[in-house]
Amino acid sequence: MKQKKFLLPESEIPSQWYNIQAEMPNKPLPFLNPATREPMKASDLYPIFCEECAKQELNQTDTWIDIPEEVREQYSAYRVTPLVRAYGLEKALDTPAHIYFKNESVSPAGSHKLNSAIAQAYYAKQQGVTNLTTETGAGQWGGALSYATKMFGIDCAVYMVKVSYEGKPYRRSIMQTFGANVTPSPSMSTRAGKDILTVDPLYQGSLGTAISEAIELATTTPNCKYALGSVLNHVSLHQTVIGLEAEKQMALTGEDPDIIIACFGGGSNFCGISFPFMRHKIAGKTNTRFIAAEPAACPKLTRGKFEYDFGDEAGYTPLLPMYTLGHSFKPSSIHAGGLRYHGAGVILSQLMKDGYMEAVDIDQVESFDAGVLFARSEGIIPAPESCHAIAATVREALKCKVAGESKTILFNLSGHGFVDMASYDSYFSGDMQPYHISDEELAKFIKSADALNNLA
Amino acid sequence: MKQKKFLLPESEIPSQWYNIQAEMPNKPLPFLNPATREPMKASDLYPIFCEECAKQELNQTDTWIDIPEEVREQYSAYRVTPLVRAYGLEKALDTPAHIYFKNESVSPAGSHKLNSAIAQAYYAKQQGVTNLTTETGAGQWGGALSYATKMFGIDCAVYMVKVSYEGKPYRRSIMQTFGANVTPSPSMSTRAGKDILTVDPLYQGSLGTAISEAIELATTTPNCKYALGSVLNHVSLHQTVIGLEAEKQMALTGEDPDIIIACFGGGSNFCGISFPFMRHKIAGKTNTRFIAAEPAACPKLTRGKFEYDFGDEAGYTPLLPMYTLGHSFKPSSIHAGGLRYHGAGVILSQLMKDGYMEAVDIDQVESFDAGVLFARSEGIIPAPESCHAIAATVREALKCKVAGESKTILFNLSGHGFVDMASYDSYFSGDMQPYHISDEELAKFIKSADALNNLA
Repeated sequence: MKQKKFLLPESEIPSQWYNIQAEMPNKPLPFLNPATREPMKASDLYPIFCEECAKQELNQTDTWIDIPEEVREQYSAYRVTPLVRAYGLEKALDTPAHIYFKNESVSPAGSHKLNSAIAQAYYAKQQGVTNLTTETGAGQWGGALSYATKMFGIDCAVYMVKVSYEGKPYRRSIMQTFGANVTPSPSMSTRAGKDILTVDPLYQGSLGTAISEAIELATTTPNCKYALGSVLNHVSLHQTVIGLEAEKQMALTGEDPDIIIACFGGGSNFCGISFPFMRHKIAGKTNTRFIAAEPAACPKLTRGKFEYDFGDEAGYTPLLPMYTLGHSFKPSSIHAGGLRYHGAGVILSQLMKDGYMEAVDIDQVESFDAGVLFARSEGIIPAPESCHAIAATVREALKCKVAGESKTILFNLSGHGFVDMASYDSYFSGDMQPYHISDEELAKFIKSADALNNLA
Repeated sequence: MKQKKFLLPESEIPSQWYNIQAEMPNKPLPFLNPATREPMKASDLYPIFCEECAKQELNQTDTWIDIPEEVREQYSAYRVTPLVRAYGLEKALDTPAHIYFKNESVSPAGSHKLNSAIAQAYYAKQQGVTNLTTETGAGQWGGALSYATKMFGIDCAVYMVKVSYEGKPYRRSIMQTFGANVTPSPSMSTRAGKDILTVDPLYQGSLGTAISEAIELATTTPNCKYALGSVLNHVSLHQTVIGLEAEKQMALTGEDPDIIIACFGGGSNFCGISFPFMRHKIAGKTNTRFIAAEPAACPKLTRGKFEYDFGDEAGYTPLLPMYTLGHSFKPSSIHAGGLRYHGAGVILSQLMKDGYMEAVDIDQVESFDAGVLFARSEGIIPAPESCHAIAATVREALKCKVAGESKTILFNLSGHGFVDMASYDSYFSGDMQPYHISDEELAKFIKSADALNNLA
C-alpha cells in the first residue's frame, strides 16, 4: 500500500515557535505612532494587546520562543496534523509533480486559526484578562477564538463582518455553540461603527471596520484585550507550528519541497507553513520557491503598494509598513471572506520586497474550479480560502506536466469547506463572478495610504 | 504533558473485518422471501445488492473477512482515526470516570459512514456495476457514498428524505460537490414515491420511503445496484474497523472499557465499535456493558417488538427478523435525522434479545444539552446523532460520580456537527421539543409489522 499520510505522535508537537524576525537580513521597519510618527515599543501596544503578545510582536532577537506547556496540551487535541500525499489530485491532473498538503482542516475549529487562538487565549488568562474581543470575516478566526477562550475560561466578543454574519449563519452558530457573543459589524455599539453607518447605512462591512470596532471595545472595557487572527507578527509566529511539523514530515517522505504554496489574506497560514522552510533560503542553503495565492478581488501583494498604513478602517492601529491597497479599501463580496483584507503582514511584506517569495492572484471561479477538482479527487471539501492555494498548486503542477518535470509541491490546506457549502452552490449555479478589480478602482483606495505617507 | 490522543500508523489499519455472525451462540433467524416465506439465499439478493455484499450479508461461517487492498488504500485517507481521552468532559462533569472516544468525525465525509461506503463502492466497481443508488436521512450516508463512488468512478443517485433535503441544504451541496445526483424523497420518479404522494401529498419523507425509491430505481435500471448505509449485516461488518482499531488503541492506554456506548439508528456505528469487543463477552472472558443510545422519538430497541418486518415502507425488501416499530412508522422531525429509522439490524436484534447489550432512549433536548457541554469542554461540535451517545455517556459518568467509582467508558463520536448548526440554533432558541412518542401512537405503527407475523 502506498503511504498517503505522514503522521507524527503528539510528543513531536513543536516545543518552540520559530521567530523569523531574528534571522531576516533586513529587519522590518518599525511600527509608528500615528500621532507622533515615533517608532513604537512593546509597552506602547499594551493598551490593546496582552503583554506577552506585544513583546513577541516586536521581538527581533530570539530565533526560538518556547511554547508554554498548557498551549502544547491544547494543541494536542488535533496536532500533529497530517501531511498527506495527494495521489488523487496528481492522477486527475496527470502530472509528474509530487503534490503534498499539510491538512490543517482537521482542527476541531476547522482551520489553522486555532494555532494562534490557543496561544493568545493562554497569554490572556496568564495576565488575568477576563475578556477578549476580536473581529472575524469568514468566521474561521472567530470560531477558533471562541473555542480557545472557552478552553481557558475567558469571555469572548466577536465582531463579524455583516456580509458573513448574514450569509454564513452556520459560522455564527459555531461561535455561539462555543459560548461567544457575536455582533454583526458595522454595529451601533461603537463609535467607529456608528460613524461608518452614518455615511453608508447599508454598508456590508469589512475586516478593517470590524477590527476598529473590536479595538474600540477592548480599549474602553476594563480587563479586556484585543486578539487578531492574522497580519501581526506574533500571529505568524504561533502559526510556525505548521511549517515546523511539515519539515519533519517531509523528511519522512524522503523529498524536499521545490515549491511551497498557501492562500493569502493577511498572511497567517502562509507565514505558518513557509517561515520554517524559508530560514534555509535566508541561510543560502536552499532555493525553494514560496508562492502566496491571493484573490484577484483583493490583490495587495501583486498590485498593492509598500507603504505605511493603518491596519483598520478607523485608524486605531499603529502605522504598519506593509503592502497595502489602502485602509479605506472596500473589497467585493467574494466567497473567500477570509482573504478580503487590505494589507499584508509586516514581516512578510519585507520578505516579499527582498525577493524571498512571490505572489499570484487567482479569481474566485478559478479557485472553485480547483477546489471542486480537489474534492472529487482527494475527497476533502476545501474552504473557499484554501481553494486559492489549490488553484496555484494546479497551475504549477500543470507547468510540470508541460515541461515533463517532477517537482515536489507542498501546499497548506488551511481549512475545510463544510460551513461554506452555499459558496459551492453559487459556483455550481454558474452565477459566480470572477471579480477582478480595475486599476482605476484600486488607485482610488490606495490614496488613503498614500496620504499617510506623504505626511510622513 | 498528559497524553490525549492515541494514534496508530496507517500500517495498523485492519486487514480483516470481524464477522460476529460466525461466533454468535444463537445465529440470526433467516431473511424470508415475503411472497413464499422461504428462507433466502445470497443469490436471492443479487438483483438488489452487489454479489460480494450479498454473500457477506448471509455469511455465518467465516469469523474474519479480508479487506481488499484497494479499500485499505482508500481507508488510509483518514484511518486509523484517533482514540481520544476526554479530559475536558471529565473535568466538566467532575467525575472519577475515565472517558475515551473514538473520533470518526475526522473522516473527510464527516462521519463513520465512509467505512462501508468505500467497501460497497469497491465491490460494485469490481463487479462492473456503473451506477449505485441509495437513500439518505441526515445526509451523512449520502455524502459518504457520493465520495466513495467518485473515488471509484461510479455514478451515484441519492434519494434524500424531503425534510432533510429542505432543512439541510448543505448536506445536499456536499453530495453534489462530490458529483452525485440528489432527489428529494418521496418523489414522482418512482412508483413507490407516487403511491405515497397520492395518499399524502405533503409527506416529508422517511428513510423507509427513500429506501423503497432507491431499490425501485436499482431494480429497474440496467447495471445499477442498491447500497444501504446501516441496518444490514455487511454494513455492520465493514464498520468493525472502528472497534478493531479501538481495541488496539485502548491497549495503548492501559485500560479496558467497562462500558461501550454509541448512538443507534439502524446500528452501523454501534455495531462497528461494539462487535470486536463483544466477541470477548460472547467467549465469556469479559463482562463489558454495551449501551445503544436511541432517540426517544424512535425507540425501536427500548419499546419496539422483535418480529419479522420489511426494511422499507413499500415492502420491497426481504422480511427481516428484528426489533421494529413497524415499517409504516412515521417518525417526528427530530434533528438527528440519521436515527429516524423504524428497525434495528438483524444481528444486533438477536444479540439484544440474547442479553449481550442494552439500550436507553434519550430525548433530543437532553442530547443537545450533552452535545453543547461536549463542544464547550472538548472543542468538537458533535453531530445531533452523536449527541445521543454523549448524553448516555454523561448519564453513566454521573452515576460513577455518585457511586465514587472510576469506570472506563468508551463512546463512538460518529460524526461532527458542522453541517447541522441550524439544529444548534433551534436548541439555543429554546424552542426545541423533547419528542417522546406515546404508547397509543406506537401501537398504531407496530400493527404494520404484527400483520406480517400473524400471516406467517
